[in-house]
Amino acid sequence: MIHPIGIGLAGFGTVGGGVFKYLEQQRELLLERTGASFEICAVAVRDQRKQRDSMLPKSLLVDSWRDLLNDPRIQVIVELMGGTTDAFELIKGAIESGRAVVTGNKALLAERGEEIFALAKKHAVPIFYEAAVAGGIPIIQNLRDAFVGNRIKSIHGILNGTTNYILSRMEEEGLNYDEALSEATSRGYVEADPTLDLSGWDAGHKAIILAALAYGFWVRPEEIRVEGIEAITAADIGFAKKFGYSIKLLASIRDTADGVIEVGVSPTLIPKKSILASVSGSFNAIAVKGDLVGETLFYGRGAGCEPTTSSVIGDLVAAAHAFHVPQSQTLSSHLVGFTPHSLYGKSRPALEIISSYYLRLAVEDQPGVLATIATIFGEEGISISSLVQPESCGEGETPLVFMIHKARYGMMQAALEKVARLTCVKAKPVLLNVETF
Amino acid sequence: MIHPIGIGLAGFGTVGGGVFKYLEQQRELLLERTGASFEICAVAVRDQRKQRDSMLPKSLLVDSWRDLLNDPRIQVIVELMGGTTDAFELIKGAIESGRAVVTGNKALLAERGEEIFALAKKHAVPIFYEAAVAGGIPIIQNLRDAFVGNRIKSIHGILNGTTNYILSRMEEEGLNYDEALSEATSRGYVEADPTLDLSGWDAGHKAIILAALAYGFWVRPEEIRVEGIEAITAADIGFAKKFGYSIKLLASIRDTADGVIEVGVSPTLIPKKSILASVSGSFNAIAVKGDLVGETLFYGRGAGCEPTTSSVIGDLVAAAHAFHVPQSQTLSSHLVGFTPHSLYGKSRPALEIISSYYLRLAVEDQPGVLATIATIFGEEGISISSLVQPESCGEGETPLVFMIHKARYGMMQAALEKVARLTCVKAKPVLLNVETF
Repeated sequence: MIHPIGIGLAGFGTVGGGVFKYLEQQRELLLERTGASFEICAVAVRDQRKQRDSMLPKSLLVDSWRDLLNDPRIQVIVELMGGTTDAFELIKGAIESGRAVVTGNKALLAERGEEIFALAKKHAVPIFYEAAVAGGIPIIQNLRDAFVGNRIKSIHGILNGTTNYILSRMEEEGLNYDEALSEATSRGYVEADPTLDLSGWDAGHKAIILAALAYGFWVRPEEIRVEGIEAITAADIGFAKKFGYSIKLLASIRDTADGVIEVGVSPTLIPKKSILASVSGSFNAIAVKGDLVGETLFYGRGAGCEPTTSSVIGDLVAAAHAFHVPQSQTLSSHLVGFTPHSLYGKSRPALEIISSYYLRLAVEDQPGVLATIATIFGEEGISISSLVQPESCGEGETPLVFMIHKARYGMMQAALEKVARLTCVKAKPVLLNVETF
Repeated sequence: MIHPIGIGLAGFGTVGGGVFKYLEQQRELLLERTGASFEICAVAVRDQRKQRDSMLPKSLLVDSWRDLLNDPRIQVIVELMGGTTDAFELIKGAIESGRAVVTGNKALLAERGEEIFALAKKHAVPIFYEAAVAGGIPIIQNLRDAFVGNRIKSIHGILNGTTNYILSRMEEEGLNYDEALSEATSRGYVEADPTLDLSGWDAGHKAIILAALAYGFWVRPEEIRVEGIEAITAADIGFAKKFGYSIKLLASIRDTADGVIEVGVSPTLIPKKSILASVSGSFNAIAVKGDLVGETLFYGRGAGCEPTTSSVIGDLVAAAHAFHVPQSQTLSSHLVGFTPHSLYGKSRPALEIISSYYLRLAVEDQPGVLATIATIFGEEGISISSLVQPESCGEGETPLVFMIHKARYGMMQAALEKVARLTCVKAKPVLLNVETF
């Protein structure tokens, strides 16, 4: 017996086009495996006149996402239009009309996930969002279903392929930041507007979603420290290597002894021998530690048409299952694609989070500079674990690199403010986290 | 609203004990996340008088697994007793009485999976078996659900922690096989009867299960080539390193251009720079390539109480969901925890499978030996890609190592039979696969 599933697709960009193409290409496979026949009933696009894949029949195109909500054949809304205003209204409308939702919109979930999932719970509608985090890697399903019996101790993720490609090329080929960025651009790894990727906020949104799933509540974007890779130089990559580390843009989410969770994204030194350090190019990877399962890692493509489409199709099959389940009889996690629970509920302010650090200063090449800086660190209670001061390059300015023992981020900030005011310190300090797992 | 789920547990060894302990320890977490309350109604053990975890109330113990089938409170049977006779009867009885099944029994599924899943389909009963493959790594769920939209191109897995520990220690510390085996034994990584692990058949059973899940049909154990690690020496590890490879006991499952699948387990040289080569110690990892998702990898603990319990609990939650779904309305994959389909259906006989090879011979240290052997290879149509003949150690016998271009395994066997008959060849040849992915 064939179960037809009516789909309304909002957005026909890279992923939307992929969903259309591959639902058709894999039709026989999906029917054999699931018994479901996925039918795209309508596709909402912003501009109907735009040249598109010739396989998309004009008859499916509609002007507005609102039309999808008025189509009684549509049981599942696939939201791939992006943005946080119309997309929110569409998802809200879908929930209120009892339709299942599949979305890849990380910014929307990070900003308004609490509202959306509360609404979904009220209306007993499932929401699936595998495509929102790490493209083809099924991390949402694994955290929600496979690891349901675990308290999650930590999640460390390389969640942005663009920045990982840039950092990998800097490390492997000795490129500087601009060279690596332009190579990434020429290979199509950089969005028209690269701000979200390079600033760390693309990874930041994903970290908020993973934290919500693991710990059952939503951390506000403005509460977390998110830093990008723009300040990283070839020199930093070189010093890190000397200390036995790679630099990765790392999303870090963890439970602590007092039950408060810590969330942040920043360029981080991780040991060269760790498996995360071997994740290079545009790949993503997520290391999850659970109290029962122990150390795990999930690795794969973090973006791109086919991998992200794979996640959307997985969600569509899950939505199809959910759709056939009378709502009153489902258990909670399958109901909303989210595992709310009240066992956690506090996140630590960024300034209170303790980490080890790598610090690079550019200082005047003259005696006494190190003593002055070390004195400030001492006053602020910060202790240095090691130090590299390369021989002078004779230009009056020299790098001074510190590895710093565990300290609150706020203490580091206070010390750096004082250090930055010294006349012997020439440029903005570069402060990176160090993680040893 | 709390959904009580009645469980009958068969077997109270490492994993059975873990399931009992951690369902209790994680009770609040599971209730918050799923709405289900998991209650162990009875535990069937072989010997009731055996000293056990004092937390297990005597009142739960029953003599026979048959008692579980007669207990009307029991909705899910968790089979962790092992073996392939009683365990089969228990699972059969569970299916016929409409109970969901959770099992970790890889040998049983590899041998009688076809029968079991056919019966399950007939009775519309779900079977879950995450614990049967790679302990804590949720590979079953990922193949079945997350990658449901993919044609699986290949699966390459390090599926046995014992042998991976031994090979890792040989590579990292230069231990010989016996030293590494005795170290693994002293660390508790070796079963009382290590035959299944060392012979490769533990991994072989898992490979058959993964192949069935990916390709929809059951390959017979007697049809596949399964080799263990007993013949690997420190010299092999050293030669492999020289060529840029690590040796791993690799399960290899792949689709080929003509739609015939290939399944096998053997010690295999894989490039040092591949992410699978960095999987060391008792960890497992599985690289899956899908036509949409591309390259992925799943890494984690392959055995042990807590990781395997994590998988059993994940399955119990899935079983609980399935249990609340009226059978007539479910789609097929969630029904039996398996995705049968008719798109594949043939596996290639082991002798027909093409691979590249590493071959080590022990030969008499005298002129003309290489020419004699090379002549045989030439006659059999086998071509050598490189060769290492270390300087003589002066004992009249010397290793001769070949890297061999792609050839059918049957051709290699025919050539090796001739080579082994030469009087200048002193010991059984060591033939390993080479994979470059």
